[in-house]
Amino acid sequence: MGKKLFQNKYGYFTEDGREYVITSPKTPKPWANAISNGDYSTIISQTGGGFSWRTSATENRITRTFQDTIKDDWGKYIYIRDEATKDYWSATWKPVCKESDFYEVRHGIGYSVIKSRDNNIATTMKIFVVPDNPLEIWELEIENTDTKERQLNLFTYFEWALGDAPDINREFHKLFIDTKYNVKMNGLTAEKCMWSMENSRGQAGNTNWPYVAFHSCSETPIAYDTDKENFIGMYSSEEHPKAMDNSKLTCKTGRYGDAIGALQVTVNLEPGEKKKIVFTLGCADSMEHADYLANRYNNIDESENAFNEVNKMWDKYLNTENINTPDNGMNIMTNIWLKYQALSCRIWGRTGYYQVNGGYGFRDQLQDSLIYLENNPEGTKDRLRIHASQQKNDGSVTHWWRPISKKGQVSRCSDDFLWLPCITIAYLKETNDFDFMDEEITYLDGGEGSIYEHCKKSINRSFAMFSPRGIPLMGAHDWNDGLSGIGIDMKGESFWVGEFLYYILSDFISIAQEKEDKNFVEKCKDICELLRTNINKYGWDGKWYLQATQDNGEKVGAKYNEQGFIYLNPQIWAVISGIADNDRAKKCMDSVSKYLLKDYGALLLFPEYSTPDEKIGYITRYAPGLRENGGVYTHAATWAVRAYAMLGDADKAYEAYRKICPPNRSNDIDTYMGEPYVTPGNSDGPTSPYYGRGSWTWFTGSAQWLHRVAVQWILGIRPNYNELIIDPCIPKEWNGFTYTRKLQDDIYMIEVDNSAHVSKGVKEIIVDGVKVESNKIATFGDKKEHVVKVIMG
Amino acid sequence: MGKKLFQNKYGYFTEDGREYVITSPKTPKPWANAISNGDYSTIISQTGGGFSWRTSATENRITRTFQDTIKDDWGKYIYIRDEATKDYWSATWKPVCKESDFYEVRHGIGYSVIKSRDNNIATTMKIFVVPDNPLEIWELEIENTDTKERQLNLFTYFEWALGDAPDINREFHKLFIDTKYNVKMNGLTAEKCMWSMENSRGQAGNTNWPYVAFHSCSETPIAYDTDKENFIGMYSSEEHPKAMDNSKLTCKTGRYGDAIGALQVTVNLEPGEKKKIVFTLGCADSMEHADYLANRYNNIDESENAFNEVNKMWDKYLNTENINTPDNGMNIMTNIWLKYQALSCRIWGRTGYYQVNGGYGFRDQLQDSLIYLENNPEGTKDRLRIHASQQKNDGSVTHWWRPISKKGQVSRCSDDFLWLPCITIAYLKETNDFDFMDEEITYLDGGEGSIYEHCKKSINRSFAMFSPRGIPLMGAHDWNDGLSGIGIDMKGESFWVGEFLYYILSDFISIAQEKEDKNFVEKCKDICELLRTNINKYGWDGKWYLQATQDNGEKVGAKYNEQGFIYLNPQIWAVISGIADNDRAKKCMDSVSKYLLKDYGALLLFPEYSTPDEKIGYITRYAPGLRENGGVYTHAATWAVRAYAMLGDADKAYEAYRKICPPNRSNDIDTYMGEPYVTPGNSDGPTSPYYGRGSWTWFTGSAQWLHRVAVQWILGIRPNYNELIIDPCIPKEWNGFTYTRKLQDDIYMIEVDNSAHVSKGVKEIIVDGVKVESNKIATFGDKKEHVVKVIMG
Repeated sequence: MGKKLFQNKYGYFTEDGREYVITSPKTPKPWANAISNGDYSTIISQTGGGFSWRTSATENRITRTFQDTIKDDWGKYIYIRDEATKDYWSATWKPVCKESDFYEVRHGIGYSVIKSRDNNIATTMKIFVVPDNPLEIWELEIENTDTKERQLNLFTYFEWALGDAPDINREFHKLFIDTKYNVKMNGLTAEKCMWSMENSRGQAGNTNWPYVAFHSCSETPIAYDTDKENFIGMYSSEEHPKAMDNSKLTCKTGRYGDAIGALQVTVNLEPGEKKKIVFTLGCADSMEHADYLANRYNNIDESENAFNEVNKMWDKYLNTENINTPDNGMNIMTNIWLKYQALSCRIWGRTGYYQVNGGYGFRDQLQDSLIYLENNPEGTKDRLRIHASQQKNDGSVTHWWRPISKKGQVSRCSDDFLWLPCITIAYLKETNDFDFMDEEITYLDGGEGSIYEHCKKSINRSFAMFSPRGIPLMGAHDWNDGLSGIGIDMKGESFWVGEFLYYILSDFISIAQEKEDKNFVEKCKDICELLRTNINKYGWDGKWYLQATQDNGEKVGAKYNEQGFIYLNPQIWAVISGIADNDRAKKCMDSVSKYLLKDYGALLLFPEYSTPDEKIGYITRYAPGLRENGGVYTHAATWAVRAYAMLGDADKAYEAYRKICPPNRSNDIDTYMGEPYVTPGNSDGPTSPYYGRGSWTWFTGSAQWLHRVAVQWILGIRPNYNELIIDPCIPKEWNGFTYTRKLQDDIYMIEVDNSAHVSKGVKEIIVDGVKVESNKIATFGDKKEHVVKVIMG
Repeated sequence: MGKKLFQNKYGYFTEDGREYVITSPKTPKPWANAISNGDYSTIISQTGGGFSWRTSATENRITRTFQDTIKDDWGKYIYIRDEATKDYWSATWKPVCKESDFYEVRHGIGYSVIKSRDNNIATTMKIFVVPDNPLEIWELEIENTDTKERQLNLFTYFEWALGDAPDINREFHKLFIDTKYNVKMNGLTAEKCMWSMENSRGQAGNTNWPYVAFHSCSETPIAYDTDKENFIGMYSSEEHPKAMDNSKLTCKTGRYGDAIGALQVTVNLEPGEKKKIVFTLGCADSMEHADYLANRYNNIDESENAFNEVNKMWDKYLNTENINTPDNGMNIMTNIWLKYQALSCRIWGRTGYYQVNGGYGFRDQLQDSLIYLENNPEGTKDRLRIHASQQKNDGSVTHWWRPISKKGQVSRCSDDFLWLPCITIAYLKETNDFDFMDEEITYLDGGEGSIYEHCKKSINRSFAMFSPRGIPLMGAHDWNDGLSGIGIDMKGESFWVGEFLYYILSDFISIAQEKEDKNFVEKCKDICELLRTNINKYGWDGKWYLQATQDNGEKVGAKYNEQGFIYLNPQIWAVISGIADNDRAKKCMDSVSKYLLKDYGALLLFPEYSTPDEKIGYITRYAPGLRENGGVYTHAATWAVRAYAMLGDADKAYEAYRKICPPNRSNDIDTYMGEPYVTPGNSDGPTSPYYGRGSWTWFTGSAQWLHRVAVQWILGIRPNYNELIIDPCIPKEWNGFTYTRKLQDDIYMIEVDNSAHVSKGVKEIIVDGVKVESNKIATFGDKKEHVVKVIMG
């Protein structure tokens, strides 16, 4: 047994950080794990509930919707019944909710393991998604720890949805589900001849759901059921289903019930005997495919193989980059959990415990895709291709879209399209892959253009959305969606968009130079100059930058405002973009420190709005201190870390980091409530009676950024085309740290010695035994390992 | 105690038919009552669950969505706790689900009463909606039947939704609800500063929900709560809420929880002592309005007054027409429940237990409005006005729309617009109010036209949608929505639409003559002739009429089809419209009798489709025997009664009626499952393993039609402009019947003597002592009572 890290009354991290172990079924919220392989995803809560879907949650879920954090049901369960006593319980705490003699949940990377011991029967249920196929496996080990033989029956249970999620019109949709028992697969299939997608004649609601869902077992079930009322009973509950009163399930299938999946398996165990049973739940392309998948994975060997593959798959993503610092929270999150969160929940599943989604956001998954850079930059490249293909010739992009229905929405948001050049630049700085700029991608409305041209179209679109005094318009909103009332008449301005554009142009100019696109270079330079002048002229409010002006010219985020007089984004991006001179950079960040950096990270604005203001937008509709309205919006709070670091303020950078790094909330867990192993979308600000409460965990774009600011701006090690910049900005107390990463197929093993106990400044760098003169190491490109010794001072 | 009618193991009708008494909490489905005053509606199930909303269910519900017929929760509950033992139960069976010593539910007209006795505490909870104000009252009488003093606490509990229903994104929407305790009203208010409706700038999601919901009590609560997690507990349930373990609720309100309403009231009762307590739940226009309503109804006297008003209101609707026949089921349904169902659920609430809706269907509520004719024809007239205002200048109409958001959909459905002249004709036949034809109504896209012109536009639109061989096109679908794949290329034909148009024209010609609209008269006559010729030429299939042809010319409902070779509608409407000659009318109705008239009424088609056929439409996607796919679709099954009666086949007419009249399923209740006091949308056909199972009760347009075919086509008494036609078509066995009704402010008391035991034929009619020569009595128009004696023979 290794050391337990960040232990509190609900659980702890294992010493290697790869598992979070929950020891009480009753955490402050149902702590979950999001398991996904890109094609199939499932959410497992520590209570054993959860839901699953395939490819795109909103479009073809296979089990039912989950919306209620209190009623953690509509899950997937295994009931266990003792045939001698007729007593029953569940392999997970829910739904029977019996106090177990032992209970433990391990959320790992790509799997969860739920152990329980009740009535001298010990069970270990391992749930994971097979790496390359659309199914999940529930591997149940069951052991008789009694001194006498035990005769048991296992019953699986869940509701099928098959298609749209949430399943809001169940009474109608259940009429179209057809279930069958399939002897060959020891299990059930479910099909649905109704789907909201359009058929070939463009008609919605007159086509089949094109998949076949299945649920099978490594043992031959003695019975099964497919109707909710048969299993649960009209006036009973998941806690006490009617099925438990009958020796066998009804073995009825067909089209006339309220479709569930339930298999009954008999297990007799001698004292001390153990048995493993595998259940599958999946969603195949055809009946043949379902047969193949069910039969392939319906056995212990293949299940164990598949689990090994899960571990190998994740090693591939996790092992190309490793930090070792004195901060265990930073180590665990950076090395393991933030990558896991960004990939499994954000990029692949696109759905979390608090939000059923499945669509792609143009900005969201582009930013998330930076998480691939250290392990598989092709992943970032693929997303750039996909997102570029969602751009029209006028430079506008689909704000969000769904991959199956192809439905989406183009908005007048003023920043979404700019993330394409922004993330492209980051990709180039990592890979130096300038050939990619010539790759042709089709526009959404026809025609082709290179990635370079796509990026130019984004930038040109932004150029076309300026106010008469040369500030970008707010449009429908900027990065801050809640500013939805400011600029809908296309008059209000966003200073933040100006800074963001300036940030992009500063890098894009050299790319345009590389492309010998002289006129555009000149134009970009002119506009940079213009933005710097105008933002500093019209956007500076004395001690900080304004967020915006309304359509009627009113300032937002100005000292004369009673509420929302300072916003976080325009300050930190003034620094990040370089638009602020040194003096203003320090001043505005001092204001951030004074008004925004609180106990749990940097607030998005201060003071929060107390009453709805239609002219500002729905941000003002949240209760004061909630989410964007004066809470810590984690996504932006991570950028504050970078801004402090860029100013060389290591203490504040680390403070801004430490306060939002989830394991650091472990001692404070009844206030925090969220999982300590993933970032929350936000935490309540000081005005909330729940100050510090984390919400909307898992499904947040902050995971990738928290990773990035740690390695690039605290550890300060970041690629820059053909260089690796080494510029730590760390707590003085640290003796140093190590950082190993892959870069363009080389491996750099960096050891930073801070025995001088400074927070910034590199005295000496020795690469493979050779001293280098600058803190920018030219990359080798030789696919070899290189040892970099850094002495701070 | 009166006679119990139609008693079975779950309940019975009271002798006067005004109540259905349920004696077991566990009926085969949660039998419900839909209570509404046109402005506020609530559904109460016999288990005590239910939900409520105001004006338009989909748009501004105040409590949460209900979708799951098994998990009958998300209700409104009163918990009762004994302070000596800390034992608790609920005034309704749900949510605590304790076996009571006595339990009884009475669903009455405009109210439900739930009685229970547990632990020597008897409670009677009466729930009703106040006639003219947007609130419901829960009047609880609580009695100590014990021999010692009892100290009790009552706790109300429900979840607020406030706005869109279903509340599918609760985790987001709960952030915008604000609750307050209001000492002056002894209760809670709830507001929400987010609504999906558009604001004045056309922006959705940036405006307040404009109502104030409230929940108050006639007693001063000792405590209250507004957060679900406080009350229920994170890992507990409505069955065993955490609040029951604490002496007092937390008294927290505000904007940071998951909003519920819960009031705690202490009640101490001496042995034998009784007490009445009134709770209100409502949705006001402002805080002042909420204060006013809560305070006005927060007391026993006003609650009792309001309940008397409920009874008076319903008397007004029910007492203007009364039948007394040997068939108790017909009497109860016709006199009471069908009117109640059509008004409270269909016209006012527009939402039922199985369907959350709130929108108006163009066809639906127009047909439903015929229920007003005998009690308040102004109601029909108002609906004609409202629906006419949903017509555009091209004659098309909004297929459905929502009254608050004004959102709706114009489709290429081929019959919706025709219901405007159809229902107008029925209104004229009842009222002879030809002045109404000149009333100007604005078109949806501007301009005005008289009702006559609106009707003409409908008819002209139909004239413009003909196939080259002179049959109306199917378009998106006809009355049978599920025929959604037949005619979307605007080539397929609907013979039923042809018959329906013919039916309308036959009556409209005389109206056009009245308007001296000669060209149009001539046109209508020509098209009538054309329709008669073409439908009989192309639509006759040897023994019955075809339903349709597909875009590719394939016939639907033809003897060569393997499935769906006969459809009900084209046969019965060939008779109803008069398009079939005597010979074909008899032949096609013989085919109906042979293939379609089964144990539980007339099937919509035969044989049902076993596999989805995109070219026919989503009707083929239902499991065989379900709903339109070969089930009894009650709406159409009522029309079969009329068709048989028009052919003079009294036995078959009565058979077709009797089989779908709900009380007649009382002996068969475990097969039927539905409430015996309201019509179901459909019941399963012979192929279903649940053959005879009623579904989609309450929210079905069949209620009004079942009323109408009974009085107009079995009893055979129907107004015809200035006449009252008396043409019974009754079972020979009947000795006669009486029928009293209001007609144009006269009262006609009709006694039909069938001592001759014929099924048809009127030998003698004596009106106010004077023999009349025909079976058409000229109406008096003198606002007096007239006695009509009819002797059959």
